[in-house]
Amino acid sequence: MTTTTPVNHRFVRYRLSPDGEPKIGLVDAEETNATEILGYTDLFKLIEAHPNLRSDHKFTTGEVVPLKTAEILAPLPGRDILCIGKNYIAHAAEFHKSGFDSSDKKEQPDFPVFFTKRATSIIPTGKPIYTHPDVTSSPDYEGELGIIIGKAGLAAPREKAWEYVWGAVIINDVTAREKQRDHKQFYIGKSLDTFCPMGPYFVPSSSLAFDQLHLTTKVNGEIRQSQNTSELIFDVPTLVQTASMGISIQPGDIIATGTPVGVGMGMSPNVWLKDGDLVEISIPPLGTLSNPVTSVSPGVWFL
Amino acid sequence: MTTTTPVNHRFVRYRLSPDGEPKIGLVDAEETNATEILGYTDLFKLIEAHPNLRSDHKFTTGEVVPLKTAEILAPLPGRDILCIGKNYIAHAAEFHKSGFDSSDKKEQPDFPVFFTKRATSIIPTGKPIYTHPDVTSSPDYEGELGIIIGKAGLAAPREKAWEYVWGAVIINDVTAREKQRDHKQFYIGKSLDTFCPMGPYFVPSSSLAFDQLHLTTKVNGEIRQSQNTSELIFDVPTLVQTASMGISIQPGDIIATGTPVGVGMGMSPNVWLKDGDLVEISIPPLGTLSNPVTSVSPGVWFL
Repeated sequence: MTTTTPVNHRFVRYRLSPDGEPKIGLVDAEETNATEILGYTDLFKLIEAHPNLRSDHKFTTGEVVPLKTAEILAPLPGRDILCIGKNYIAHAAEFHKSGFDSSDKKEQPDFPVFFTKRATSIIPTGKPIYTHPDVTSSPDYEGELGIIIGKAGLAAPREKAWEYVWGAVIINDVTAREKQRDHKQFYIGKSLDTFCPMGPYFVPSSSLAFDQLHLTTKVNGEIRQSQNTSELIFDVPTLVQTASMGISIQPGDIIATGTPVGVGMGMSPNVWLKDGDLVEISIPPLGTLSNPVTSVSPGVWFL
Repeated sequence: MTTTTPVNHRFVRYRLSPDGEPKIGLVDAEETNATEILGYTDLFKLIEAHPNLRSDHKFTTGEVVPLKTAEILAPLPGRDILCIGKNYIAHAAEFHKSGFDSSDKKEQPDFPVFFTKRATSIIPTGKPIYTHPDVTSSPDYEGELGIIIGKAGLAAPREKAWEYVWGAVIINDVTAREKQRDHKQFYIGKSLDTFCPMGPYFVPSSSLAFDQLHLTTKVNGEIRQSQNTSELIFDVPTLVQTASMGISIQPGDIIATGTPVGVGMGMSPNVWLKDGDLVEISIPPLGTLSNPVTSVSPGVWFL
């Protein structure tokens, strides 16, 4: 037990050795230390126990560890991730112009475009994105705000949708562009192993100002995406309403809300991810999701 | 312990009371009795323990129960289901002509069209399909052969693809047609609660002749679909190869291989599922997946 009081609820899932048990901790303002929360090793269980976490809630805490000595894990592994396509105006335009959108002939969608990424594609910050040279020649990044569902629901009305939003996490919706195009439905192009970096932190709604979140994506230090995440075509309440429209949503479901303009597909000529690249996606206070890119296969990837 | 010897490995997951523990049993030729297999309550674990189940394998068996006294459960609940769109020639034509296919302008796809249904949509045989009158006015059935993956893999080559196929199960890929059309990606239209009837039995490859499976779908006793499931545009080895193309497949993954011609969308005028209908999909020896249709909400549905 310690007397450390973290500045807010910014959680991290981590372990102290490769075969160590996962732990949940609170990250300090300087992102230097994590303070272990006792009683939780699984974020799904923490969400279920605290569906509406208040910002003044005090957890029972344990050991304080320097973050640099810990291995940061993906916050919510194991469940397929919901994603939204074409949800920022300028990105919808670059996608439409690119020739890679075979799914629709309209620049902007009339209804939210929901698809999924397979759970096996999830990796944490720090781990490499594998380019799959035998499968694709067009791997591309997509920095996104992911919202985390906090309570089970069905037919959530727009005006109550925020009650279902537990918090947020950064998602990199990595995409094999020619597979996304060729298979019409996006699942294959979106689900390659390592194509869903997630993290590093997860922050409850009570510690966030959702309309003031700004997303920045850098590749090798160069800014490629920079936009406020509130500039969505379909806003968060509309996404929650649609996701639960006859479909039971569950605590720990993630909806990646779409990517802003500035992906490699939108550049002329196209610029794809390649061995040696570093992709960094930041949304303060969710941290920076940082993943190197490799063309060397990690083998079968199971989280 | 008994001396009953079932004719082949045709499994059923069931329970004897609403709060009873799930059991796995072997179904006899007459579909009268189930013989409990001791040591398994979860089909995922049975598959992992027997990735290449031989037809002469003897399980340790327990109680014999009349099937009519048991509640049959969905074989493999809990994981999002992979599905294939437009995978029979005549169905691809009826879909193309119907006006509900906004995802593509070609009648037949050049590559397998993969999408997913949410795990929360899974129901067993016997339970009602809810029409969701507040969400859709075009609920439609799709009888399908589902193949079950038996071992973890990545980049399964075509010529070894059958090694990854553990067995088969019937899937009804129920669809809200206007949602499938309006949202471009199929996830929403395919994932409404109760829209994935699955079962009743699951049969390993060693007890199946995959090229001799014939699917029949009846609505209120009228035959709507009748086709050999080997007449796929993209065959099972191609589907396994594509599903594992850079994507780790796992034991218990299900790929619903697509529906034959004869869905309600293909009829003129369209005929949608309605309260009081009964949908029966048969593929001997996988049994008959039989679900009534209701317009009365079952409430939040969690399996």
